[in-house]
Amino acid sequence: MPTYTAPIKDINFVLHDVLKISESSIPGYADLDRDFTTSILEEAGKITSEVLAPLNVVGDREGCRLENGVVYTPTGFKAAFNQVRDGGWPGLATDEEYGGQGLPYLMGTAVGEMFGSANQAFTMYQGLTNGAYASIHAHGTDAQKTTYLPKMTNCEWTGTMNLTEPHCGTDLGMMRTKADPQSDGSYKITGQKIFISAGDHDMADNIIHLVLAKITGGPEGIKGVSLFIVPKFIVNDDGSLGARNGVSVGSIEHKMGIHGNSTCVMNYDGATGYLLGEEHKGMRAMFTMMNHARLGVGLQGLAQAEAAYQNAVIYAKERLQGRAVTGTENPNGPADPIIVHPDIRRSLMDQKSFVEGARAFLLWGASLIDQTHRAGDKDADGLISLMTPVIKGFLSDKGYDMTVQAQQVYGGHGYIEEHGMSQFTRDARIAMIYEGANGVQALDLVGRKLAVDGGKHVMAFFDMVKSFIKENEGDDALKTNFLDPLKAASKDMQTAGMYFIQNGMKNPNNALAGSTDFMHLFGHVCLGLMWARMAKAASAALADGTSDPEFYQTKLATGRYYMARQLPATALHLTRIQSGADTVMALTADAF
Amino acid sequence: MPTYTAPIKDINFVLHDVLKISESSIPGYADLDRDFTTSILEEAGKITSEVLAPLNVVGDREGCRLENGVVYTPTGFKAAFNQVRDGGWPGLATDEEYGGQGLPYLMGTAVGEMFGSANQAFTMYQGLTNGAYASIHAHGTDAQKTTYLPKMTNCEWTGTMNLTEPHCGTDLGMMRTKADPQSDGSYKITGQKIFISAGDHDMADNIIHLVLAKITGGPEGIKGVSLFIVPKFIVNDDGSLGARNGVSVGSIEHKMGIHGNSTCVMNYDGATGYLLGEEHKGMRAMFTMMNHARLGVGLQGLAQAEAAYQNAVIYAKERLQGRAVTGTENPNGPADPIIVHPDIRRSLMDQKSFVEGARAFLLWGASLIDQTHRAGDKDADGLISLMTPVIKGFLSDKGYDMTVQAQQVYGGHGYIEEHGMSQFTRDARIAMIYEGANGVQALDLVGRKLAVDGGKHVMAFFDMVKSFIKENEGDDALKTNFLDPLKAASKDMQTAGMYFIQNGMKNPNNALAGSTDFMHLFGHVCLGLMWARMAKAASAALADGTSDPEFYQTKLATGRYYMARQLPATALHLTRIQSGADTVMALTADAF
Repeated sequence: MPTYTAPIKDINFVLHDVLKISESSIPGYADLDRDFTTSILEEAGKITSEVLAPLNVVGDREGCRLENGVVYTPTGFKAAFNQVRDGGWPGLATDEEYGGQGLPYLMGTAVGEMFGSANQAFTMYQGLTNGAYASIHAHGTDAQKTTYLPKMTNCEWTGTMNLTEPHCGTDLGMMRTKADPQSDGSYKITGQKIFISAGDHDMADNIIHLVLAKITGGPEGIKGVSLFIVPKFIVNDDGSLGARNGVSVGSIEHKMGIHGNSTCVMNYDGATGYLLGEEHKGMRAMFTMMNHARLGVGLQGLAQAEAAYQNAVIYAKERLQGRAVTGTENPNGPADPIIVHPDIRRSLMDQKSFVEGARAFLLWGASLIDQTHRAGDKDADGLISLMTPVIKGFLSDKGYDMTVQAQQVYGGHGYIEEHGMSQFTRDARIAMIYEGANGVQALDLVGRKLAVDGGKHVMAFFDMVKSFIKENEGDDALKTNFLDPLKAASKDMQTAGMYFIQNGMKNPNNALAGSTDFMHLFGHVCLGLMWARMAKAASAALADGTSDPEFYQTKLATGRYYMARQLPATALHLTRIQSGADTVMALTADAF
Repeated sequence: MPTYTAPIKDINFVLHDVLKISESSIPGYADLDRDFTTSILEEAGKITSEVLAPLNVVGDREGCRLENGVVYTPTGFKAAFNQVRDGGWPGLATDEEYGGQGLPYLMGTAVGEMFGSANQAFTMYQGLTNGAYASIHAHGTDAQKTTYLPKMTNCEWTGTMNLTEPHCGTDLGMMRTKADPQSDGSYKITGQKIFISAGDHDMADNIIHLVLAKITGGPEGIKGVSLFIVPKFIVNDDGSLGARNGVSVGSIEHKMGIHGNSTCVMNYDGATGYLLGEEHKGMRAMFTMMNHARLGVGLQGLAQAEAAYQNAVIYAKERLQGRAVTGTENPNGPADPIIVHPDIRRSLMDQKSFVEGARAFLLWGASLIDQTHRAGDKDADGLISLMTPVIKGFLSDKGYDMTVQAQQVYGGHGYIEEHGMSQFTRDARIAMIYEGANGVQALDLVGRKLAVDGGKHVMAFFDMVKSFIKENEGDDALKTNFLDPLKAASKDMQTAGMYFIQNGMKNPNNALAGSTDFMHLFGHVCLGLMWARMAKAASAALADGTSDPEFYQTKLATGRYYMARQLPATALHLTRIQSGADTVMALTADAF
C-alpha cells in the first residue's frame, strides 16, 4: 500500500528561502516565521500521513453508496472528517470573524498540497466547502453570511457547486434549471444537475448547494443565469435545521477515479433557493468560486504527482533487477536496485523537478492572491488572474503525466491495484477535466486573459523575468545553467505572443489552434523562473555556509535537470504555434 | 456505449496504394489483390464491430471470476470465442500444415488491429495462443508440433507465456521456478508465476502453458533458464485429454484495465512439463514468442487509439457547446458542435494523424516479417529486429496518449464509465508495461539493437530514408510539405546516433540517459517516412484521376498536419539526448 510523507523541508524552503515570506509586507505574513510554519506543517503532516493517506485506498476500493436516498462515504471517512474538523484544518485560512483561523491563503495552499497528496477524494469535501464559503463571503448579504459562514468555516456544513447539466457544461447559457420567484423573496429551483462533487454524504449535518439557474422571464442565454443558495435542510431563523428541502440524489456516478468522493446527479424539485449576489449575475458570483477551485485543481496535479513520486522512489530503491551498466552497485544482493538504471533515473528526475517547480509556482501564486486580497494590489490580481489557467491546465496535465511515469517505474506491479499506483493515475485524471477542461483553460488564456488591460499583465510578466535575469547575471553558474535557458524560453513565449498578435487578428483560429501549446509554453517558463529563483536561493544558502549543504546542492542539481531537459520544450511549442491554423483546420468535419 | 467501425478503406489504402502488396515478390502476396483483401477485411469488420465491440464494456464491468479453482470469463465471451473460432480467425495466418489458412502475417496484422480495437481483453486469449504457437512451431520437436499445433492453430486449445515471478520480471536470471528431470524425459515444474494473461478460463478444452524454469543443477542465472510446455490437461498418446496436471490458479489479479482477460497467479506444484527447444536455451525460444508479442503490443497501442478516436469524432460532431469563433456554423441549433473549436480539432488531428501513420508503420513492419520468413531476406530481418522496440515502445506510449486525448474530448463525460472512454485509457495503459516495459524497449534499442552487425541495420534505415527523399524531391509539394521535414527529422536522428557513438564509449550512461528520447525520435522519423510515402501514394492517385479525390486529399492534409505539428518533436528529443547523463545521474540515490 502506498505511503505518504509530508515534504515539510521542501515547502519551508520555498516559503522562507525563496519567497522570504516573513520579510514580506503582506498583512499577516510577518507572523509566518520558520518555527511557526514548521509547527503547522508538522501537524498537517501527521494527520495527512497517519489518518488520511491510509484511507486513500479504502476510498478507492469501497467508493460511495446510495441507499434509500442516503449517501454513505467509505469506511473511516466520517471519523477522519471529524478528526480533521477537530484539528480546525478546513478553517485554517478562513475569516476569524466567522470562526476561522485567519491564516493567509498561502498557508492554506501549503497544507492543501498535503491533504491532496494524502487523499484527494476525501479532501474534495472540504475543498468544495472552501469554494462555496468564498462565494458566499464575497457575494452574500450580511444575513446570508451570518447564517452560513460560521457553519461552513470548519465544515460543520459542507458546500457544493452546481453548474453542469446533461446537455451543457462549458456552455452554461444553454442551462435549463429554472428559478421561480416566490412572494417571500425566495425562489423555487427545478432542474437536474450532474457531476456534483460531494453532492451528498453522511459526514455533515447540512449541505449548502450553490446552484446556477435561470429566473423565469429573465434574459436568454448566459445573461439570464443567477446563483442560488439551496440548503439540503432549510435553516430556521434561530439557526436550527428545519425541513428537508426539495433536493435529492438521483444517482452516484461511476467514475474512473476519486471513488471516495460522492459525485452525484442532483435533482431539484421546486427546492427553496435564495439568490446569492445579483439577479442575472450568477456567472460573476460563480467565478469567485471557480477561480478558487481552479487553483485548487492545479494543486491537485502537484499533489498527486508528489504522492506518486514518493512511492516510485521507494520502489526504485527496493526493487532489485539487473545490474548498473557502469558496474555492480549492490554486490551482496542478487541484483542492483533499479534506481541505478539511467532511464529510471530520468523518470524520477522528470517527476522530482516537476513537483518541486510546481510547488514553488503554486506557493508563489498563493502569495499573489494574498497580495491581492490582503494588500489590495491590483497588479498582483492581474498577474494571478493571467496565470490561473496556466496553473490549472499545465499543472494538471503535467501532474497526470508524472503519475503515469511513477506508475511505470513499478512495471507490471504498477498496473495491478494492489500497489495503489493505478489510483494516483486514475485520481489525477479528473484534474485535467473538471473546473473547465484544459482546452477551455487554454482558450481562456489565449482568447481572453492575454489581452486583458491591453496585454498589460503579460507584459508585466515578461518584465519581471527580464529584471530577474538582469539582476542576477553576474553569477556565472546561475547565468549558464539557469538564466540563459530561462531567457531563451521567455523569448520563445514572446515570439509566440507576437505570432498571435500578427496572425490572430486576421484569423482568430491562428491563435486558438496554438492555445494548448501556449498554455504549456507559459507553464514551462513559469517553472523555469521558479527554478532560477530556487537556484539563486540555494546558491545563497550554500554561500552563507548552511549546515545542510546536501539539501541545497540537490536543489541546484534538480533545477539543472529541469533547465536542460524540460524547459527546451518551449521551442517545440513555439514551432507548433507558428504553424498556425492551416493544418489544424484543413479538413471539413465530414472528413473525420 | 462506444461503437467501432473497421477502417477498411484506410487499411486497403496502405496495403494497395502504399505497399502495393499484390505487385510484391514475397511468396503469397500475389494473391492479395484488392478484392481479396476487401472480402477478408469486411468479414473481420463484421465480427469485430457486431460481436466483439459490444462485449468490450461487458468484459470491463464484469471482469473474470475464480470460483473453486475455475476461472469464468465475462458473459458472452465464450459464445463469441466460438464464433471467432467458427470464422477461422485465430488461424488466419498460421500454417496450412496444421490447419491454418496460411495467409501472410501482414493480413494477420491488418485483421489483428480490428480485433484489438473492438475488444483488447478478449483478443488477448487468441494473441497469446498465436505467440505460443509460434514458439512451438519454431522450436518444438515434430511430435510436439503434431500434438499441439493443430489444436492451437484455431484456439481449440489456447496458450500462455509464463515468465514473471513476484521478485523478477525484466531480470529473469533471478528466477526460482525449478524443473526436475524425470526418468521418462519429462520434468516436474515447481514454482509460482504471476501476471499470466489468459492464464486460465472456461473457453478452451486445454491450455498450453509455456513456462520458463531452471533445470535443477544447471548453470546459475539467465544461462540456466529453459522453456517448457506444461499443458493444463496431459495429452494422451492418442491425442485425447488425460489427467489434470499439477498447475492451478492462485488468484486473479485486480488490474487497472483489460478486466475481461484473466490475469492469473499460476502455481506449479510438480506439474509435468516437456522441454521446448534446447536445455538452458529457454530465453532464445521465449524470444520467438516475445518478438511476436512485442509487435502485437505496438498494434494494441494503435488499436486502442483508433477505437477511442472514432468515438471522440462521433462525440465532437454531436455535442453542441459554444459557437465557432469565426461565426456560427449551426444557426438552427442551440450551439455549434464542438468539432468547430480549434483546440478540439487539434486534438482530433493529433489522433487521426497518429493512427493513420501508426497503421502504415505496423503494416510495413508486418511486410518485413513476411519478407524475412517467406523470402528469407536477412536485411528485412535486421531492419524489423531494429524497429521492434520502436514499434512496441513508441506506438504504445503514443497510443496511450491518444486515448487520453480522446477521453478529454468528452470532458466530464469522459471520466464517468458510462461512455466507455475511460476503458480505452485504462486498457491502453498496459501496453506500455507488458512484454518488457517501454524503458526496457528503449534500453534494448540503444544498448543493443543499434550496434547489431556494426550498426548495419540503422545505416540501412538512413539510406532508405535518403533514397526515398532523393527519388521524390522533384515533386515540389511533396518536397516542401513532406520530404524537407523528413530530412530534418532524419538528420536529428543521425546526430543523436553520432552523439551516442562519441559519448557512449566514454560513459554508457550518456547513451542510456537518452534511450527513451531516442526511441521516440526514431518513432517519429518512422511515422514521418510513412506519411511521406502515403503522401506520394495519395498524390499519385489524385494525378491518376481517382474517383474518390476527397479521400486522398484528406490523406494529404492529415499528413501535412503530422509533418508540421508532430514530427518537429525530434528536435526536442535530440536536445535532451545531447544533454547527456550529467543532469540525469547527478544525484546520489539517497538524495531522492
